[in-house]
Amino acid sequence: MTVRFGLLGAGRIGKVHAKAVTSNPQAKLVAVADAFEQAARDLATAHGCEIRSIDDIEKATDIDAVIICTPTDTHADLIERFARAGKAIFCEKPIDLDVERVRQCLNVVQETGATLMVGFNRRFDPHFAAVRKAIDDGAIGDVEMVTITSRDPGAPPAEYITRSGGIFRDMTIHDFDMARFLLGEEPVAVTAHAAVLVDKKIGELGDYDSVSVILSTASGKQCVISNSRRATYGYDQRIEVHGSKGMVSAENQRPVSIEVANGSGYTRPPLHDFFMTRYTEAYANEIAAFIDAIAKGSTAAPGGDDGLKALALADAALRSVKEGRTITL
Amino acid sequence: MTVRFGLLGAGRIGKVHAKAVTSNPQAKLVAVADAFEQAARDLATAHGCEIRSIDDIEKATDIDAVIICTPTDTHADLIERFARAGKAIFCEKPIDLDVERVRQCLNVVQETGATLMVGFNRRFDPHFAAVRKAIDDGAIGDVEMVTITSRDPGAPPAEYITRSGGIFRDMTIHDFDMARFLLGEEPVAVTAHAAVLVDKKIGELGDYDSVSVILSTASGKQCVISNSRRATYGYDQRIEVHGSKGMVSAENQRPVSIEVANGSGYTRPPLHDFFMTRYTEAYANEIAAFIDAIAKGSTAAPGGDDGLKALALADAALRSVKEGRTITL
Amino acid sequence: MTVRFGLLGAGRIGKVHAKAVTSNPQAKLVAVADAFEQAARDLATAHGCEIRSIDDIEKATDIDAVIICTPTDTHADLIERFARAGKAIFCEKPIDLDVERVRQCLNVVQETGATLMVGFNRRFDPHFAAVRKAIDDGAIGDVEMVTITSRDPGAPPAEYITRSGGIFRDMTIHDFDMARFLLGEEPVAVTAHAAVLVDKKIGELGDYDSVSVILSTASGKQCVISNSRRATYGYDQRIEVHGSKGMVSAENQRPVSIEVANGSGYTRPPLHDFFMTRYTEAYANEIAAFIDAIAKGSTAAPGGDDGLKALALADAALRSVKEGRTITL
Amino acid sequence: MTVRFGLLGAGRIGKVHAKAVTSNPQAKLVAVADAFEQAARDLATAHGCEIRSIDDIEKATDIDAVIICTPTDTHADLIERFARAGKAIFCEKPIDLDVERVRQCLNVVQETGATLMVGFNRRFDPHFAAVRKAIDDGAIGDVEMVTITSRDPGAPPAEYITRSGGIFRDMTIHDFDMARFLLGEEPVAVTAHAAVLVDKKIGELGDYDSVSVILSTASGKQCVISNSRRATYGYDQRIEVHGSKGMVSAENQRPVSIEVANGSGYTRPPLHDFFMTRYTEAYANEIAAFIDAIAKGSTAAPGGDDGLKALALADAALRSVKEGRTITL
Repeated sequence: MTVRFGLLGAGRIGKVHAKAVTSNPQAKLVAVADAFEQAARDLATAHGCEIRSIDDIEKATDIDAVIICTPTDTHADLIERFARAGKAIFCEKPIDLDVERVRQCLNVVQETGATLMVGFNRRFDPHFAAVRKAIDDGAIGDVEMVTITSRDPGAPPAEYITRSGGIFRDMTIHDFDMARFLLGEEPVAVTAHAAVLVDKKIGELGDYDSVSVILSTASGKQCVISNSRRATYGYDQRIEVHGSKGMVSAENQRPVSIEVANGSGYTRPPLHDFFMTRYTEAYANEIAAFIDAIAKGSTAAPGGDDGLKALALADAALRSVKEGRTITL
Repeated sequence: MTVRFGLLGAGRIGKVHAKAVTSNPQAKLVAVADAFEQAARDLATAHGCEIRSIDDIEKATDIDAVIICTPTDTHADLIERFARAGKAIFCEKPIDLDVERVRQCLNVVQETGATLMVGFNRRFDPHFAAVRKAIDDGAIGDVEMVTITSRDPGAPPAEYITRSGGIFRDMTIHDFDMARFLLGEEPVAVTAHAAVLVDKKIGELGDYDSVSVILSTASGKQCVISNSRRATYGYDQRIEVHGSKGMVSAENQRPVSIEVANGSGYTRPPLHDFFMTRYTEAYANEIAAFIDAIAKGSTAAPGGDDGLKALALADAALRSVKEGRTITL
Repeated sequence: MTVRFGLLGAGRIGKVHAKAVTSNPQAKLVAVADAFEQAARDLATAHGCEIRSIDDIEKATDIDAVIICTPTDTHADLIERFARAGKAIFCEKPIDLDVERVRQCLNVVQETGATLMVGFNRRFDPHFAAVRKAIDDGAIGDVEMVTITSRDPGAPPAEYITRSGGIFRDMTIHDFDMARFLLGEEPVAVTAHAAVLVDKKIGELGDYDSVSVILSTASGKQCVISNSRRATYGYDQRIEVHGSKGMVSAENQRPVSIEVANGSGYTRPPLHDFFMTRYTEAYANEIAAFIDAIAKGSTAAPGGDDGLKALALADAALRSVKEGRTITL
Repeated sequence: MTVRFGLLGAGRIGKVHAKAVTSNPQAKLVAVADAFEQAARDLATAHGCEIRSIDDIEKATDIDAVIICTPTDTHADLIERFARAGKAIFCEKPIDLDVERVRQCLNVVQETGATLMVGFNRRFDPHFAAVRKAIDDGAIGDVEMVTITSRDPGAPPAEYITRSGGIFRDMTIHDFDMARFLLGEEPVAVTAHAAVLVDKKIGELGDYDSVSVILSTASGKQCVISNSRRATYGYDQRIEVHGSKGMVSAENQRPVSIEVANGSGYTRPPLHDFFMTRYTEAYANEIAAFIDAIAKGSTAAPGGDDGLKALALADAALRSVKEGRTITL
């Protein structure tokens, strides 16, 4: 079976997914839609697919699945439309910034029985996936404590911050999903501290740039998350998982692994400085998993519920900061 | 000037300090006192010093300074006695498990003008000291976020737990001191999560074995601490400090740094499995700093106030767990 | 300009190069030739190109360049044919196993003025290329001593050994090229030791499986090469270059960089176990460089002379072993 | 039993050994001799021992063993004298720079049945000893190939070079001993390349500062040694041993293991910059092993024969350079 795709959104991440689809022997990119004609045209030319409107993709009988890479505030509507149209749906995170809106949307998905996969790409990073596999293989016994470090090379522009839903819903949400992926048990308590240390403008917009979070599960498992919008040495993405029998961790990644030694010491180059180069393989593996799930008729994961739960943790973290207490879910 | 020492307590840590004194050209070990005669005798024989009672050491005119390595519940009394006797005092942490008792004791120290140094040995670890020096040298700009990982190879026996004051006052207290040492600003808010994941008996004794803590300072600097009474791979002691210009970290230490590679991968041996081998240099450097301060008439640090503040953070962490909220100091 | 390609040989490495050509926006794969019809057909289907005979590709007016991935004993003949046909030529190493035959072939290349690039792919590995760049940038001052470690996961089958020209011409030749690439001066003296330690059959075929080589240049720079047909922990490929001001090295590469720690120590997974996964980026970069050189009309390197010189070093190493002395070139 | 020591030579290395003796509960430092009175007096004061002449130590009935740390050209004579005097002897390497003189000396040792241990301290480095132990434990199967990197932070002064016997007898000799220690089989063939790349004066004195050596054993095992009198990043001392089942290696050592990360990359401090700090533990362990052997009446190793064989390899390496060929032993 060849899965036939419509792509909604021909921006930066749309291009990445288009490449993943066209290089997959089980998939075909049929059409792309984008409000910016030039973007749609460039992508269509590069991959030899058609340009269609979202409406036409919705009605198309030659399209089985869509990838939604449009702006965040369109996600929930599009998911509902394409669920009703009987298409399998891959949607970039988040489904929506509002938990209630997400719940409504997921109700539609459930009613229609549509396949929905949410773009928590980090689960598909080969290193993080290997950490999870080591846990599943029993390498560290029962999971007890998780530490996630996630630091961006630099703060995004003010326009982005404004529409982002704040650091917990925009940035930490990836770590909340990773925590759930690794803990193997739902967090039931959240405490967060947050501050503006990097960029005063972020504070003026009502957001934070430096946050620390603790999650606990019912059985007492803990996850500590450390986030910052600043990391001069590159895109800092580490996890370590401690269990009853040992520990498994994933190191940072750098594009070039050389070392120069001299009187000043031993120096290795900085890390990747951009999430798209850091997670190149993760993006490709994610779409491959989606295609594979459709082709096999199996469940696509992470699904809508994963999107909802990560968002609920983000909301709880924000409340914890505002109220100065541990929030119980 | 030669600093003449009396040693109170000839146990495990007393022996370590005796060696530090006798191998220091600026110091002389005059006498040792211990309730267990054999322990005193062994130490006296090994180092060629006298055996005296605590009373005699208190009255001695040939002794300038004492090192207190007796059980915790005797510390505050002994500090007061020797402060009044005009001796310089090095006391193993903690001064007492009760903040009020510590305050009283420090009042006596202040009134008498005695020199008091508290045994937060980790400040003197060459690697952690180098982290602090890198900060002082401006290598990472302004400190923003600190991460401290501190995991023991195994849980202590029940008797120890009972007298320990609980994990925050016994184990995390070292990390609270390290946080203060590195943040360069007092924490004003503390949140902690705690659980029993390693040993049910610890829970039955009302204590925890796995804790996560966030500290924040007035300007928003944050420190995350992760503690466990379990680490199968050895004594896990790491710190990393993120600043406006970069990051500095200290790696774990292992007694032997070889690597065996085969079809199973690349394997390095476990870490030190005991705090006394991990911190051998720290203990020696700590006493050397105490001797040096006395010889030079300079301030010995960390002092009584450092002991008090770390204990107050431990108390706050415990309250945070009990009350499910952030405690403001 | 679009460079139009004919591919000679649709085997393992042919497929890799076909992918590099088709994913390059400056290039087009027009046709493939292979004695095994099925291989040619599979590749043609996968990439949407024609199947043609070598004769037809030679005469084709719609083909600018060829990539030669046929068996070694056909390389020199094909280079001569396509040089005379006015095509740009990329040829897998070696040009031939016989130095005299290589010289004849290169004479034809020179007479015809053809562009010839030889497949020393390791120069295009991002890590090794970064080592060279660090040297060129002056990071280590004048190069003095180079150490190259190159160990295969396992010995090749007897059939391969028989046709390989022996370990120096088959395996060490990559290291001879790397030595030349890094030393910045031609080796003039070669000494080698060789033995059969891995597989007796290799000895029965008159070859070695474990060799050590020293190269010296006229100014005294030295390169040490260590080769083995055995490495249980994966494909071991390291270089380090010492200069007057410091050292630069390239580490080994592993597909997954996680670490599991427990009572047995800290274990990272084995390295890549196959040259084609280890050098994925190198192969792609190599063909991209060839395309770029043709498109720009610049010199393609490494060229025929590099192939000749590496082969001459291999011959010298073998003579050194046989005669028990240093061979001067 | 307490082993009673006389120390011959109160210089830099004499002080190190004095400390090792006095801190060992099985040993006692009775007397020191040194032509420089002040040196003897300082050491005697520091350790509370007597000052005696070499003659008096030779005749002393209260001395069981001597440690010879006098200039190299006195070693052989002193070994003979103290062997005849019935003392156990620890002698710094080398016994002599002349193989024939060493042979004569060892004949006397054999005739007298004296215990002689030679100061190849690196065998006692905890990391290198752990490499050997891993081999003995079967961790890597049969040893096949050894790589030894040994690079000094800087070239010694001309006076030292003049009396050193040349780089092979002075510096590489440690690596020859390490090669024998690790190969488990005597080298029978030696080839070396040598040059002056660091300091022209060294060349003017007829010596080299940059050498590469290959050793082979009868069964074909190989060892590659890389030496330089220059290493800007510290004292570079690495070994790796490849066997039929895997590889074991020992990393370099640095006094402080922190890492600073910023826009320039990740930087760890330089290595130890001096052999006496790098090998602190090795020196202590070496004397402890000597004392232990005497106390137990067991064989002290490495012995005179190890000194002789390492020297013979050094001589062979020099001949190899001079004659441009592999030297067979």
